[in-house]
Amino acid sequence: MRILGVDPGLTRCGIGVIEALPGRKVRLVAVDVIRTAADMAPEKRLMRMAEAFEEWLADHRPDAVAVERVFAQHNVRTVTGTAQVAGLAMVAATRVAIPVALHTPSEVKAAVTGSGRAEKAQVQEMVRRILGLDDAPSPADAADALAIAITHGWRGSAVVPLDGARTQTAAQRAWAEAAAGTAARAQAARRRLAR
Amino acid sequence: MRILGVDPGLTRCGIGVIEALPGRKVRLVAVDVIRTAADMAPEKRLMRMAEAFEEWLADHRPDAVAVERVFAQHNVRTVTGTAQVAGLAMVAATRVAIPVALHTPSEVKAAVTGSGRAEKAQVQEMVRRILGLDDAPSPADAADALAIAITHGWRGSAVVPLDGARTQTAAQRAWAEAAAGTAARAQAARRRLAR
Repeated sequence: MRILGVDPGLTRCGIGVIEALPGRKVRLVAVDVIRTAADMAPEKRLMRMAEAFEEWLADHRPDAVAVERVFAQHNVRTVTGTAQVAGLAMVAATRVAIPVALHTPSEVKAAVTGSGRAEKAQVQEMVRRILGLDDAPSPADAADALAIAITHGWRGSAVVPLDGARTQTAAQRAWAEAAAGTAARAQAARRRLAR
Repeated sequence: MRILGVDPGLTRCGIGVIEALPGRKVRLVAVDVIRTAADMAPEKRLMRMAEAFEEWLADHRPDAVAVERVFAQHNVRTVTGTAQVAGLAMVAATRVAIPVALHTPSEVKAAVTGSGRAEKAQVQEMVRRILGLDDAPSPADAADALAIAITHGWRGSAVVPLDGARTQTAAQRAWAEAAAGTAARAQAARRRLAR
């Protein structure tokens, strides 16, 4: 199942495509950040975004489009543009009969890091690990778009537990193992220094 | 000059077309309210709005599209949908090379009533008078869409003075005359009652 994820924004819009394979495996297909200049007329900026969504949908023909749900409570200054870009992505997909799903930022963070309150850097690092990349996708908008697509790909394959729940998702296990590895390496380094 | 005005909203979107003639004369061409049901999927609701804008643009071929500028500060609960519908109207126009203008709610109120803080009923009544209609366009969203179009049609033909400025627009003069007429009628009625 091919999923196109969108982290909406008028200045920078993250867009990424992944292939979700059986067993919660995911593979990176493409990722980019669409930018528009702040001094362009707002309707021209929106038009550019609408065209970019149409190009990506035509190029990658995803089975689903997952868009980050926009909340007006956050970033009141930029929410109008962010909401508009999200709306354009939703309509571009609906126009070509591709199902649309919305995921909240905390759902996405919980899905990929195990914590709904994870920092941006942690999301970037987990996206890197989950997709087996050498470098974390950058800027954060690119990683966020992939995280949204991953969240959608994993949706239904396991319930995402709340923080502190006993069951672990694959992402949480990967994160826990990575964290344990980091701790072990730090301990080894301290031992070497202590000699 | 034919102008299509949009009062954006996801549940009710006002849309109206006027013909702006020389001498600040304006004529009603068409007005309606596009509605979507709250239980429809958000992407389907947005799609319906996008299609409606395309139909109206094709049917009326306006020279300009004027959209109410959306502020996140107002109505936080509904601003996401409102902003998205405004964005779709802006892109629909830009796609067919029709210039887009945004006007703030207070600019629109000031243009048609002389006060940036006018009530909805006052805007509806002034739209009725300015367009020479028997009945005020209803619901308020329909009148607001026409008020936005009128504001755009009058833009440049006179500077809209701030409240308390000495110069009057045609709308302000019409409103002042109407208000004076109402006051005179009320006074006459009081006189009759006092006899």
